[in-house]
Order: sequence, then C-alpha cells, then structure tokens
Amino acid sequence: MKKHTVIFEPAGKKCTVSDGATLLEAAARAGAGLASVCGGSGICGKCVVVVKDGMSSLGAPSDTEKEFIGPKDGPVRLACESRVHGDVTVYAPPADTLPRKTARKISVNLDPAVKKYSVKINPPSMQDMGQGDRERVTEALEAGHGLSGLSMAYSVLKGLQKTLRDGMWEVTASVWTGREIIRLEPFASGAAYGLAVDIGTTTVAAYLCDLSSGSVLKTFSATNPQAAHGEDVMSRITFAMTNKDGLSVMQGEIRDCINGIIRQTGIPPEDILDMTVVCNTVMHHIFLGIDPSGIGAAPFVQAVSRPLYVTARELGIDINESARIYILPAASGFIGADSAGVLVALRPYSRDEKVLIIDVGTNGEILLGDRDGVYSASCATGPAFEGERIKFGMRASEGAIERVWIDPDTKEPTLETIGNVRPRGICGSGIIDAVAGLFKAGIIDKSGRLRRLETPLTEDLPHTERLRLDADGRPEYVLAWKGQTETGADITVTQADVRAVQLAKAALHAGAKLLMRKMGIERIDRIILAGAFGSYINKESALAIGMLPECAPENISAAGNAAGEGAVLALLNVGKREEAEREAAKLRHIEISTDPGFQEEFLAAMDIPHR
Amino acid sequence: MKKHTVIFEPAGKKCTVSDGATLLEAAARAGAGLASVCGGSGICGKCVVVVKDGMSSLGAPSDTEKEFIGPKDGPVRLACESRVHGDVTVYAPPADTLPRKTARKISVNLDPAVKKYSVKINPPSMQDMGQGDRERVTEALEAGHGLSGLSMAYSVLKGLQKTLRDGMWEVTASVWTGREIIRLEPFASGAAYGLAVDIGTTTVAAYLCDLSSGSVLKTFSATNPQAAHGEDVMSRITFAMTNKDGLSVMQGEIRDCINGIIRQTGIPPEDILDMTVVCNTVMHHIFLGIDPSGIGAAPFVQAVSRPLYVTARELGIDINESARIYILPAASGFIGADSAGVLVALRPYSRDEKVLIIDVGTNGEILLGDRDGVYSASCATGPAFEGERIKFGMRASEGAIERVWIDPDTKEPTLETIGNVRPRGICGSGIIDAVAGLFKAGIIDKSGRLRRLETPLTEDLPHTERLRLDADGRPEYVLAWKGQTETGADITVTQADVRAVQLAKAALHAGAKLLMRKMGIERIDRIILAGAFGSYINKESALAIGMLPECAPENISAAGNAAGEGAVLALLNVGKREEAEREAAKLRHIEISTDPGFQEEFLAAMDIPHR
Repeated sequence: MKKHTVIFEPAGKKCTVSDGATLLEAAARAGAGLASVCGGSGICGKCVVVVKDGMSSLGAPSDTEKEFIGPKDGPVRLACESRVHGDVTVYAPPADTLPRKTARKISVNLDPAVKKYSVKINPPSMQDMGQGDRERVTEALEAGHGLSGLSMAYSVLKGLQKTLRDGMWEVTASVWTGREIIRLEPFASGAAYGLAVDIGTTTVAAYLCDLSSGSVLKTFSATNPQAAHGEDVMSRITFAMTNKDGLSVMQGEIRDCINGIIRQTGIPPEDILDMTVVCNTVMHHIFLGIDPSGIGAAPFVQAVSRPLYVTARELGIDINESARIYILPAASGFIGADSAGVLVALRPYSRDEKVLIIDVGTNGEILLGDRDGVYSASCATGPAFEGERIKFGMRASEGAIERVWIDPDTKEPTLETIGNVRPRGICGSGIIDAVAGLFKAGIIDKSGRLRRLETPLTEDLPHTERLRLDADGRPEYVLAWKGQTETGADITVTQADVRAVQLAKAALHAGAKLLMRKMGIERIDRIILAGAFGSYINKESALAIGMLPECAPENISAAGNAAGEGAVLALLNVGKREEAEREAAKLRHIEISTDPGFQEEFLAAMDIPHR
Repeated sequence: MKKHTVIFEPAGKKCTVSDGATLLEAAARAGAGLASVCGGSGICGKCVVVVKDGMSSLGAPSDTEKEFIGPKDGPVRLACESRVHGDVTVYAPPADTLPRKTARKISVNLDPAVKKYSVKINPPSMQDMGQGDRERVTEALEAGHGLSGLSMAYSVLKGLQKTLRDGMWEVTASVWTGREIIRLEPFASGAAYGLAVDIGTTTVAAYLCDLSSGSVLKTFSATNPQAAHGEDVMSRITFAMTNKDGLSVMQGEIRDCINGIIRQTGIPPEDILDMTVVCNTVMHHIFLGIDPSGIGAAPFVQAVSRPLYVTARELGIDINESARIYILPAASGFIGADSAGVLVALRPYSRDEKVLIIDVGTNGEILLGDRDGVYSASCATGPAFEGERIKFGMRASEGAIERVWIDPDTKEPTLETIGNVRPRGICGSGIIDAVAGLFKAGIIDKSGRLRRLETPLTEDLPHTERLRLDADGRPEYVLAWKGQTETGADITVTQADVRAVQLAKAALHAGAKLLMRKMGIERIDRIILAGAFGSYINKESALAIGMLPECAPENISAAGNAAGEGAVLALLNVGKREEAEREAAKLRHIEISTDPGFQEEFLAAMDIPHR
C-alpha cells in the first residue's frame, strides 16, 4: 500500500500515513494536536487547516467540507474530511485561535449599509468654472444613481482631486446609507468588505464578509485580552472601578485585539467599509470607553440603550476611518447587543411555535416567546458552565474534557478532550456530561449527593476505586487518574462541583419556568441552544440533569454563535438593524432576581429529575 | 502743573507727562513704539493697550473708545483717547499682533448653530430599567424643548454618566443645528463661545464671540506663518507642488497659528462650540489639506465649491472636538469663501443702488451689482498694493510710510509712518498717496513718466534735489533722506514703482469697467473698500490716480474687514450661512483675463486721469 508524508506547520510535526487516511488521523499520528470536537464526524468544523503544499494530493472537498468552507476561502480544508493521496504540507493554526464561535450559513437578502456606485464624471473646463470636484461627483451620483443630498467624508475630500485624475474621471463611490461618500476609488471597483464582530467576555469572534456578494469569507477568533482582569463581567467592572486607568486599559485591549484580527484578514484597512458589533452590555461600555459601573448595581443603568453609530476614527479601529461602526442595541444592563443579535438571527417573534432560546455564555440569557411577544430574562447561572468554580474546571480550550460517558455497570468513564490530547481539566459540557453520567450510574442521588462510601454497595452499584474521600474527608469521583493526565494529578468531580452545577442548572431552569408562567404556557415547542457553549453541550445530558424545561429531544437544537450571526445579518442587510432595534425595544424583560415566584421555582429545580 | 509717570510693558519704557496728556502722546515720548494709523484721531482703533495698573487715573472711556472696545473687553483702552490723570502702567502689545483686520460693529439677530438647553432628568430607578442615560437625556430635551431625533456625539457619550451624576440630574446640552448634542455640562450653564476666523494670505484674524449674547468679545490677529513660503497665493501653490510635504507643512502651520490664537483667548477649548472660516480658495484648500494646484492653472478647478462642515477633531483645531467647523463656500478658484463673507456682510444683492465692492487683499476681488444681480471678478492687480515689487515696498507694519503728501509748490513731502517711528519703507496706501502726490505736483505726467531732469523746469515746477537719477541713470524721487530713515538709506519712489502702481490700478479699474459693461451701466452709485488695505487707503489719492471708476467721493467708504465680519455673521446667525450659500451660488463670475473687452479697458486705464 502507498505511503505519504504529511507535515504539520508551524510545529513542524511529521508522519507517514497510508493512502486514504484523513489529515485528522495523520495529525493524531504526528502528535500535531489538531483540535476536533466531534472526533472526526464532520460536525464541529474545528479541524480546519490551510494547505500550503500538495492540494492536488487531497481529494475534492466533500459536501460536508463545502458546508463549512466557502469557495473563496482559499486553500482551506477540513482535516477530518480530507483524505491523503500524496505528500502534503499543511498549516494547522494553534488551538487558541480556532473559531469556537462558528456561525451558521447565512441566508439574507443583500442590502448592506455601504454600497458602491461607479460613475463617469465630466472633466472640468473653462465653461463650467465654479463647480468644485466634490460637486461634480455628487451631481454625477445623483444623475446616474438617484442619490440626492450626498455629503462627502473629509477623509475622501482630502484625496478627491488625485482620485479623480488617477481614474481619468471614472470613479467608484462607497456610500453609507445613501447619505455620505465614505470612500472614493479610481475606476470601477467592486470589492467591498465588512466585518461583523462578536465581543464575548472570553472570546472575540469576527466574520469577514464580502459586501458585494454577501458571503462570509472567513471567521476569526481570538481570546478577549481583558480576560487577564477576570473571567466574568463583574470582575471587569471591578477592574474598571478599582484601577485609575482600568477602563482605558481594557478599551485599549479590545481595540488592539480587534485591530489584530483586522490585520489577520490581510484586507487593506481602507477597503473594510463597515463593521457591526454585538456584545453584552458591559463589553459594550468598555469597547466604547464608557464607565460600566452603573451596570453592576441597582438600578442597573447603562449609558445608552438604543443602537449607536460611531466612526472608526473615533474608536481607533483600523478599518476605513470614515466607516461608521454600528453597535446593536443593548436594551438593558442584562440584555445586551448580543441578545439583539440572537433575536434577529433566530427571530422568535416571527414563529408560531413557542421557542426558548438559551444563550449560555459567561452570562445565562434566555428568550422565550412567539409571534405574540417575546420575554427575556437573565439567569444568574454563575460561571460553572464556563468551567469556573469547578475544582478542575477550565475554559473550553485544548486539553479540556468536553465529553464524558460513565458506564452504569463498571462505573468506568470514557473521556473526550478538546484537541484529542491528554486531559488538563474539565470544561462546561464535560461537567454536565459528568454529572448526568454520575446520576445515571447511581453514584449521585436525585438530591445531588455523592453516595457515602460506608453505605453497603448493592449489586446495582458495585464498589469502584474511583469513588473515594478527598484529603478533607469529602467524597469525590476520579474522572482521570494522574497517569493519564497532562498535569500529572488526578482529575476529579467533587461534591462541591456537583452542587455548583445544580445551582447553575436550577437558575436556568427556574428562569425558563418563570418566563413560561409569565407567558401562561405549560409546554415549550422548541429549545434552541445558542452561543459557543450551546454548540458543544450534549442535549441528553442537559435534559438528564434538568437544566432544560421539558421538551421533545428532537426539538432541541444548537444554533452556533447566533449573536455573531445577528451581527453578520446586520452587516449584510441594513433592514436587519431596524429589525433588531424594533424587536429589542419590544422585548419584555423580566427581572428574575426580584420576582416573587423565582425562589419557589429555583428550589423546585435543584433536584436532578428521574426520566 | 501735575506730572504723572507712565510705564509701557513689556518693553519697560517709561516717561513723565503733564496731566491730561493722552497715553498715545506718552508712548511717543517714552519711545514705546505704540502703533497708530490715524495719528490719534480715534479712527483706526489700532492703539489699543491693556491697563495693568492705575485704571482710575484714566478718565471714563469716550464714545469713540466705546465704538472699538466693548464692556466685556476688560481693562482695554484706546491710547489716543485716554487722558492721564495719575500714574499708570499699561501693556502695549507688540506691533505685529495688532488687529489690523478690524471688523465693524456687528448687528444681527442672534441665532447660532449651537444653542444651549438646560434640562432636569428623572434619575433611573428599577421601574424604568432598560432606558439608557443617553435616552433619558434626549427624551428630556424632546419633552422640554421640542428637540426630536437628537443624536449624541461620541465625545459626549463617553463622559455622560459622570456628567449626569455630577449635575445631580440637571444638565445643559449644547445642540448643533437641532441635530446633535456636542457638549453636556452639569447643572445649568449659559456660557457658549464661538470663533470666527479669517485666514488671509498674510494675516489671520479671529473674532471671539459670545454665542449667548451675540457680542464680539475680542479680536485676535496673527501673521499667517505660511508667509515664510511666499507672500502671494501662487507662491504657496508652488511650495505645495515642489515640496514633498509642502501641503501638510502649510496645513500644520495654519492649524498651529489658529490653535495659538485659541490659547490666547484663555477660553477652555471645550467651551468653544462653533467656528466659522472665511479665506480665499487657496487658503481654503491648504487649511483643509487639499492639494491647491488645480486652482493655479486653467481650468482653475477647486476641490469643493459648496460650503463645508468638518469636525474640529478631524482638522486638529483645539476647540470642542465635536464642534463642526463651517467653511463658507468658495464659489470658484478666484471667488473664495472670503468673498462669500464680504457678500453677507455688505449685502449688495439687497441694495437698490449699484454698489462696487473692492476687496484688495493680496488678490483684487471685486463685486458689482444690486438687487437684480451681482457680478464678480478677480483682478490681477499684482502685489504692488501690498508693497511688493516696489523698490522700498513693505507690508503695512511698523515703520511703513502709509501717508504721503507732496507740496505742489516746494515739492517737499510730508510723511506718516505706522507706529509713528522713523520710516523703513513704503506700504500700499503710502505708494498710492505718493503717486497721486507726484502727479499733482507735476513730477510725473499723465502717462506716469517721471519728469526728465534735462527738461528745463518751469516756474510751476522748480528744481528739487529730491528728483534725481539713480545709479543706473533712471529718474527717482527721494521720499525720505537717509538721515531720517530707520535703515540709514534714502527711501525713493522709482520709475518702475510708478509703473507697478499703474499696472495694478489699471487692472482694478479695467475690471470694474468690464463688470459695468456686463451690467450695462455707466455710473456706480457707491464704492465700498473692504479688507485691511481698503481701510487705510486715502480715497482722494485712489480717485486721483484713477484706481477707482467715477463715483462721488462722499459715496466712497471703507468697510473694514468685511470678510471677517461675514464669518462673524455666519457664526452668530445660522441663516446667514444659507444666505451666503445662496448668494455665492448666484454670483455671476466674469473671467476677466479671457474676456475680449478687457485688454481695451486695461490700456485705457493705464493713464493717470486729469480731475
């Protein structure tokens, strides 16, 4: 059988594989640490690689690959779907730059805020003296394209004369919302780019779009550098309040992060003509350099609740300086621009069925409704689902256990880690799986208590070494022995971990139930899990631990990064901005923590249900 | 008789004067070099001083003083009108910062582009969650002042929360044209300032105005630092074309110059909420950083012919960063924003009488018309009227001979210099006086030729030593002997000087005649001399040399810096901007140099007429 050499850059890892092996298999053999969530099923889209040499040695892209990678993406392939038929060199990006925030395929009528118009202009002569170059351009655009009352950005005016002459009186104007010329290029030019940015508390995702075709060219992802000041929004508020320059430091960090992504796109900054932003209200304030402290305490006042346009110049974002960055509305301190993005992406307000949308990022934001109205609430889930306050918890990055199955008979676990490497800790989806598995295996009871060791083990629950007492005499379950871990220490699930998961899932469940009560409904037709976490969660486990209200499992689905998708939609169709504004303003926000019914629902939701 | 001590700072000059002497007399005695154009007649307003000590030793301001100095100007007096009745210390500003560009008293309905509105705002509570601070402010402004659809500048948004809380929910918004909040201050605050700027090729004048009262608080003046690159606009264009960074260097120079004036005002930059600018088209382009080369050659295309708003932030002007600087329209390469300023200041389009307006700055721009229409033209006067291309010519600054009388009998001259100091050269008004005087004294004939020395002198023209041959054997007239001059050299009027004046005055006269022909009129009802030069010119001399078309002398007047006055009007009344735009667009511009009738008029105007 033929053998081929596969080289993985930048690590320089190398291996030999048989003809027909996938790149993902090659990566495992080479120890290249290529990330894959779905384990090669062609579902997660995480094992993207850039082919540097030997594209012809790989077969044609499969339909699955085409789902994730567009024709304009260049030499990009999905490793799990690409079979090796010759020597290949690929670039496998480091795990932390991988796009965990994947947006679905976008389908929307193309109607961007910035459009391009080419015109020919009459050169000046002694006969029409007194008409300025700017007026020649605006009049030609009015005559040729019906655009009246156009203004011209100062940045365009400065180079106007040269552009007109370079283009021999044929130019292309980029016009913002039919009002202002923000760019002028010589000759006819169709290329127009926009960037949709989702500023998460932990991860920043950006979608580079072609404004002329409406396609998402590429997705970028980076860690929000503010994470150095704390994982959750409250820690960011604290940092801003307790450090003299805390706010401007964090504003600078997110600006630099976004500018870094812009550099990565390789698109000349002046060609990026529009940008939309979604984020929670605290990220929103920090991005704008506005004190977020009011959001942290009652009466939870944000600086601005309606949508906002700010020029790239004023924000120091390195796209076309006269582009106006559009920030989706942050309807309240809890319901941010990210929720507005989720709204337009999933459109609960246009559905007949009652849909529950759960966006479990660092905050647990939920929407419930149908065409008759949508309620919103923010659930204090705490950071357990993000791997925080869990003894061996970690963020969903390389080495995190993200899938757990526990054999009900042997009580032995099967684990899957991000990147298929030795485990370093447990992330949110892993801990939910673990708690569900422990419950199904009878190791924890419905109140969430780990079986006491002195209880005689029945036939149904044979003794397992994995169930033991920790140094303080509290029970814990060993998920991975130290010999198998990256850290050299056992990775365990503690009683406190189970309690943290119970509190988080109860908050979410109770929030959903409270909204159902407000709507006066008993059942939900559909549940959509949005956000990075929602895409990786095992819905059976989530149902098993009672995190979700009752719903037919086949009607539970993940929507990927719906907030980011909303930002893309708002970028590609200016009408979606109005829709976001209108629908965000119509949201009926329920302040859960002060609602008299909440405590009752919360306590009722603490137990793990029998199913 | 009582004696008093007067000290002049910053030079530290000191003298003793009798009771009742004027400060101007004291300055002359002390050798303080205080500028005065009118020689103490209370006409020119140039001998302003700041009283540092002993204000009570000066009498109450005369009516004449009140004409020039407002009640808000502080301890400022006119030296020629202030009589000394005790010891006084005054600050006499250096001559080059003197406001040569004096605007007349301004009378206009106050309706500025930026207005202030105070409002009380409901503090946020848990009941109205979801309303941002911005929306609280805009809704309060709508409810209280009927301002709908207001946007808020990003600069305001950044400090919004602090301002609201500092002011305990009472704030004052500065609103630009009913559209955008560009400043927000805690509590009620009425103070609002604006700056009207006249960027001359040689001199920059600025008028600090109180937008709440409509008064001009103070006038500032500075030399345009671009003068280092040449005196006229063509030299600036050349500098921009022949130096790599020439344009940005000159833009930086004028920006720094204006920012220097802003610092001089002592007003905090953020309190200056509006700015208007007039200037010729070349200055206009350089101020904006736009290549002016198109204006220098046919077809004389400027970048922008309609008015323009650019934020202070974008131009780097140190007033409130969100203020929008308004540049009056530059209708063509020759008819600049300064002409638009002159238009609204003098309003020829609303007059029944046919008025000729001559703005002889470094360019000779003329307007002729009445309510039925106004024609404009630009006359290539050359720089003779600015003291250039005259052998001993100089700008109108200290030591320039600006008044000349020649005794027809003795042929002896009487001179007056700026600052009452020993002469250093001749400025524009002086050379016109000199040519008129030489003609009246019979020393030059109607063709402008200096009498040849060998011609026997008649009784009417006795021999004078002042008429002599220069080193090259060409006749010249000695205006001041070296013993009397600052330079230690004779100051003379040469044959070439007379020719330069003839060319300049013929260009102006021919331009006016050509416009009269276009209008189909034989006589002009009124002539207004605008601009710095117009204020200092002796109208009898101007008529004597045939610089002006026929007009009754009593209907010839000076209007001071009408362009600057137009900038002030546009600052104080936003309707004046529309008026300037409308009327500048209606101007019928005649391109003189290519008009077939011009050469004929020009030749006919070369002679010095008999009157």
